[in-house]
Amino acid sequence: MDFSIRAANVEDCKDVARMNLDLAAYENVPEQVTITHKDLEQDGFSKNPFFQCLIAEVPQQHKSKDGYTSIGFALYFYSYSAWKGRSIYMEDLYVMPEFRGQGVGKALLSKVAQRGLASGCNMLNFTVLHANQSSVDLYLRRGGLDLTSDVGYHYMAFEEDALQQLART
Amino acid sequence: MDFSIRAANVEDCKDVARMNLDLAAYENVPEQVTITHKDLEQDGFSKNPFFQCLIAEVPQQHKSKDGYTSIGFALYFYSYSAWKGRSIYMEDLYVMPEFRGQGVGKALLSKVAQRGLASGCNMLNFTVLHANQSSVDLYLRRGGLDLTSDVGYHYMAFEEDALQQLART
Repeated sequence: MDFSIRAANVEDCKDVARMNLDLAAYENVPEQVTITHKDLEQDGFSKNPFFQCLIAEVPQQHKSKDGYTSIGFALYFYSYSAWKGRSIYMEDLYVMPEFRGQGVGKALLSKVAQRGLASGCNMLNFTVLHANQSSVDLYLRRGGLDLTSDVGYHYMAFEEDALQQLART
Repeated sequence: MDFSIRAANVEDCKDVARMNLDLAAYENVPEQVTITHKDLEQDGFSKNPFFQCLIAEVPQQHKSKDGYTSIGFALYFYSYSAWKGRSIYMEDLYVMPEFRGQGVGKALLSKVAQRGLASGCNMLNFTVLHANQSSVDLYLRRGGLDLTSDVGYHYMAFEEDALQQLART
């Protein structure tokens, strides 16, 4: 299949927001998405952006059944490990179901790795739902480490009220 | 106990590197630390820094038995959730053993939360070793969510050779 990967620009935010919602629906938690394409525009494409984004695109003649040519994305940002130094964190990797199994996800992941290495990063981190066994297996086959299963790291969050409460103490 | 929290500057990198090694030794993996204070200086205190850092400090008269006044640190960076938007990620939180149980860790965590909220963040993420039950319990008591136990997220990494390999495919 013919596709290409390119850096996202501000006009892509509607497509990213659309695929974002698809992903949340796929994981049965559509209500978890609280941001809109306006947030993505502001947070990713003003001074000191909070994230970077790559778009996977097909030519017009291969557009999706709903008429889309942007058919996948990877959202990432630079991070840091106090032990390993410069790192890159992949927050999301998504390919529309009708375009899966054709190397799009692999190409997005590869490009994120290239971006990281070009900035001197030694590590790529991300989280994956353990129930998504096919993804976990794929990452492990490519040499990924499961730091939860292997070392016991748990991924934690303070959200909204809890975060406010922390700041007040 | 008398202590204060302030933003780190480039001169603090030796202290951060020292405490970093203490933490890795405590977790029985001192060989995991591959960066030095030189890396911290370069990565945290040049243009487009990869991280921010807070230092907990005691006055001279309360210095540690080895003569240190910098007795804890928190290392964090801004991140992003495709669902929740602007986020802050706490990579490390450390207090020297002889100064624990006196609110230093709590004060560092609170300041990280404040920094996040001041930048419009809706979420604070971090990882914790599940075997470190007292830390896990403390975070849960303060309203933290264990996204590994509750939702099934596993924390993953591609390091060094695996990362190089990904970039080539």
